[in-house]
Amino acid sequence: MTGAEFLTESLIRCGVTDVFGIPGGVILDFLYELDRRKGEITAHLSFHEQCAGFAASGYTQYSGKIGVAYATKGPGITNLLTPVADAYSDGTPVLVVTAHSEKQLDRNIRFTAEQELDTVALFRSVTKYAVRIDSAEAFAGEVKKALQITAGGRKGPVLIDVLTSIFTAEIPETEPISGTETTQRVTSANYIIEKLKNAHRPIFLIGDGIHQSHTEKRICELAEKTQIPVLSSRCAEDVMPVSEMYYGYIGSHGIRYANFILSKADLIIAIGNRLAFPVNSDSYKPIYQNAEMIWIESDPAEAGRHMPHCTCFPENAADTLCELSKRTVSYKDPDTWTAICQKLKTALFEMDVNLPVSMAAEAFRAIQPDAVIVNDVGNNEFWSSRAYLYAGIANRMLYSKCFGALGCSLGKSIGAYYASRQPVLCVTGDQGLQLNSQELQFIGMHKLPITILLLNNGASGMIRSREKLRYPKFVHTTAESGYGTPDFRKLAETYGIGYQTFSPAAFENMDGPLLVEAQFDEAIDLEPNLPRGNRCQDMSPAMDKVLFEELDKL
Amino acid sequence: MTGAEFLTESLIRCGVTDVFGIPGGVILDFLYELDRRKGEITAHLSFHEQCAGFAASGYTQYSGKIGVAYATKGPGITNLLTPVADAYSDGTPVLVVTAHSEKQLDRNIRFTAEQELDTVALFRSVTKYAVRIDSAEAFAGEVKKALQITAGGRKGPVLIDVLTSIFTAEIPETEPISGTETTQRVTSANYIIEKLKNAHRPIFLIGDGIHQSHTEKRICELAEKTQIPVLSSRCAEDVMPVSEMYYGYIGSHGIRYANFILSKADLIIAIGNRLAFPVNSDSYKPIYQNAEMIWIESDPAEAGRHMPHCTCFPENAADTLCELSKRTVSYKDPDTWTAICQKLKTALFEMDVNLPVSMAAEAFRAIQPDAVIVNDVGNNEFWSSRAYLYAGIANRMLYSKCFGALGCSLGKSIGAYYASRQPVLCVTGDQGLQLNSQELQFIGMHKLPITILLLNNGASGMIRSREKLRYPKFVHTTAESGYGTPDFRKLAETYGIGYQTFSPAAFENMDGPLLVEAQFDEAIDLEPNLPRGNRCQDMSPAMDKVLFEELDKL
Repeated sequence: MTGAEFLTESLIRCGVTDVFGIPGGVILDFLYELDRRKGEITAHLSFHEQCAGFAASGYTQYSGKIGVAYATKGPGITNLLTPVADAYSDGTPVLVVTAHSEKQLDRNIRFTAEQELDTVALFRSVTKYAVRIDSAEAFAGEVKKALQITAGGRKGPVLIDVLTSIFTAEIPETEPISGTETTQRVTSANYIIEKLKNAHRPIFLIGDGIHQSHTEKRICELAEKTQIPVLSSRCAEDVMPVSEMYYGYIGSHGIRYANFILSKADLIIAIGNRLAFPVNSDSYKPIYQNAEMIWIESDPAEAGRHMPHCTCFPENAADTLCELSKRTVSYKDPDTWTAICQKLKTALFEMDVNLPVSMAAEAFRAIQPDAVIVNDVGNNEFWSSRAYLYAGIANRMLYSKCFGALGCSLGKSIGAYYASRQPVLCVTGDQGLQLNSQELQFIGMHKLPITILLLNNGASGMIRSREKLRYPKFVHTTAESGYGTPDFRKLAETYGIGYQTFSPAAFENMDGPLLVEAQFDEAIDLEPNLPRGNRCQDMSPAMDKVLFEELDKL
Repeated sequence: MTGAEFLTESLIRCGVTDVFGIPGGVILDFLYELDRRKGEITAHLSFHEQCAGFAASGYTQYSGKIGVAYATKGPGITNLLTPVADAYSDGTPVLVVTAHSEKQLDRNIRFTAEQELDTVALFRSVTKYAVRIDSAEAFAGEVKKALQITAGGRKGPVLIDVLTSIFTAEIPETEPISGTETTQRVTSANYIIEKLKNAHRPIFLIGDGIHQSHTEKRICELAEKTQIPVLSSRCAEDVMPVSEMYYGYIGSHGIRYANFILSKADLIIAIGNRLAFPVNSDSYKPIYQNAEMIWIESDPAEAGRHMPHCTCFPENAADTLCELSKRTVSYKDPDTWTAICQKLKTALFEMDVNLPVSMAAEAFRAIQPDAVIVNDVGNNEFWSSRAYLYAGIANRMLYSKCFGALGCSLGKSIGAYYASRQPVLCVTGDQGLQLNSQELQFIGMHKLPITILLLNNGASGMIRSREKLRYPKFVHTTAESGYGTPDFRKLAETYGIGYQTFSPAAFENMDGPLLVEAQFDEAIDLEPNLPRGNRCQDMSPAMDKVLFEELDKL
């Protein structure tokens, strides 16, 4: 078995069906082996390696399988840095396969041969594991290790940079693997059950870790059975969106009723959530005067962070939830607490729906239930998040969560399509769409059923908002200050992609590539937000004072 | 003086007139200071940070001044990796300014706050110096150090990642600097003069180091005075292209007469040339049986590489050339040797001119003498190189030399325009143009006088050529095998850029943005090449045997 055969066989056994990249000399032998196994695994040609990386991310975010991107040496490799750093921040299991031609790397000179890089040095700080493989003997072991690390524990990207001759070299006989899952002993469940016995207002605070551990159904069933309300981080709003026990996402641009509910909790059980919101800020601190926090965190390094009034268990969400689901879990007077939550939601559900939110919600209501929504970065993603809850849909929704990689959505949409084989709705802004517009060629030439909802305010909106708060004028963020957009209708036509101006009907078919443009005034800012120092439920613009005080007292 | 004021003042004093980037929260205070000094320095908005980096490279490659790119934290920074690695490989002085908001970086967890990165870890291996600056006291010193390092010795990129609050903080009183140049004592000149006394067939072998040390005029005058023929690496063909003493570029895709002349040399004086050609291969080894090599190399690490039959002086090209120009330099019988060189050039000048070469040459003959030519990567750059000599022009010509960064040409063209304020001819291929096509927005909205010559063979030509040699079929490199191109006329129109199919007249005005498309059959391969094992003058396709033997005997 050659190195390329072993690697390809391993990927197939892990369930990987689609990989993404751009060919180059040193990677060709891997590409030809992928081509030989075409019925089982397909290599797709990207038009910028950055989008190959995002496609791999979108693929794994949707499917839970490992995402794979490959590149040739030199700029092919460095072009992958952004999606790899994004995958690292977001805990996305992406395997990056690159290759090199030189066995020896002389780090004293700038490059040993043209385009040769110290890839491990470049990628070490944004991967779980990065390795340069120069021996056929070590190859199989390193591939197994890479697959286990990328998908194990807190997931994340891994890079293998392979001496090109290993792809065609015979490697020592060994069995390809298909990944392993381990179960740990759980001590958190008992603690949670005991604490709940004396709690009046408990909540689950979930995050993307629920998706990553494939426990969406379990948390939903547990919440409904125990009547414990669930709040989430913004990017986990699609875990159990239509459950009666779900009450939206918290945060400085969060849902008002979610922030209200959090402010009233007396027990916060954080699970699959890294606690990235500003826990120690004046907005959230008052909560811990009344509430205890229990935190299930699979990454031991994260678990070492200090959280106020918090007991942390370095355990996996899946294991804890599995254990809890087998046990009797109850708390004091669920009816009163769920009635309060319901009252808050009802009172505030219609609030904060501005034009972009209502238009996105109309689009969301029109799409098929199996369609995948993929978000870009900027104000558009926040409008999209809000519209999602407002629309009351249950589609899967992907984000660049923590890294905020502008322009990621086209690549991720491509990956999400191949993972789901369902239509994809890509929500993006005018700056993000431009950043990687070359990938429209991929969508157009393969006639993928990807509908792009372009929320076009002709501005770099998020930075413009920040300028508005602090500076005397705008620079490079509005049409008047140096920012610009092309004619998006012509851009779509260039790539054989349909074009329509916004109407809900545009989202009904989703049977081919389509760009739907919704235009807004650049002055529409991101609202509501949380002014520094305000308690988390006291968002801006301020709501009616009487209503606020009534709800705050509940 | 604030940090932003000091940095901006320093850049202005170094002669920097234009910088490139995309704004984001943490970098805004620097951007506003640049804006305040708008008459003296201009910040330009890019549409992908990758192109901001390439614009900085193009700016410095043309002007010799420091190129500056800035980015905001997170993906803004990682998007700069490719142009920075390119600048490192090519010895291009690019200063990258980025910023961060967190004073403490906890390397145990994946990110301290959203988008925060260990930038120094990411950039260390592809910069001369990378530093995270967290104290206002250290700021001025670090800026001075960065400017000195980027432009000193063997040039290259430097990254300063600034705590954002330093931009508005008062920094200790200090004088901004404007870079320094140092002169070293030279020992190579005597050695060269002594060796030349007994040489019959000496040559200068120059490279891009001549541009970097701004000694184009000096080497040209020296060669003409001493009658020593000059050969070059491909990317230094524009150093003294119309001098009678210049005989083209060597290499495996080099000019036949250049390789012939190299094969006959008995003294090779390499200056401003890294000796990156395969010196030790069977193609070049026979040369050193008769020839000695003298190598002036400013980078001590490079100077440590072993070269056959070579005496290396770790000195600067500028210093050596300055010294030589003051002295009497002569060798045995210049008339015989220059007659041989002239005979070779005359006999072979018309050879190897295929369709893309002749079309590019027609374009080159049509452009203004002040226009800058910027190349992309792939077969197109090799055709462009050949066309340049064939056309007999003397325009400045920029490349991505060693890193081969596909897609670099649009960004570099933008930088070259602001450095020169002259029309730019950007030569690119259909894959390279796609990779960073978003930057057409920059060119179109500012109506820059950039003419894009698109050599479109509808293929990933260089990889296709490699596949043809080794594999049973093509994968992802031709239209039939999965590669594709958009309608380039529509692409140009999308961005308000003119479009014409190829004609020499299209290149005469260059007064606004224009895309000129020349279409070729994908089957046109890169020729001539040097089959492994052939002596360097014996290129493929083989020339007439009788003529070859006649020339080989000279």
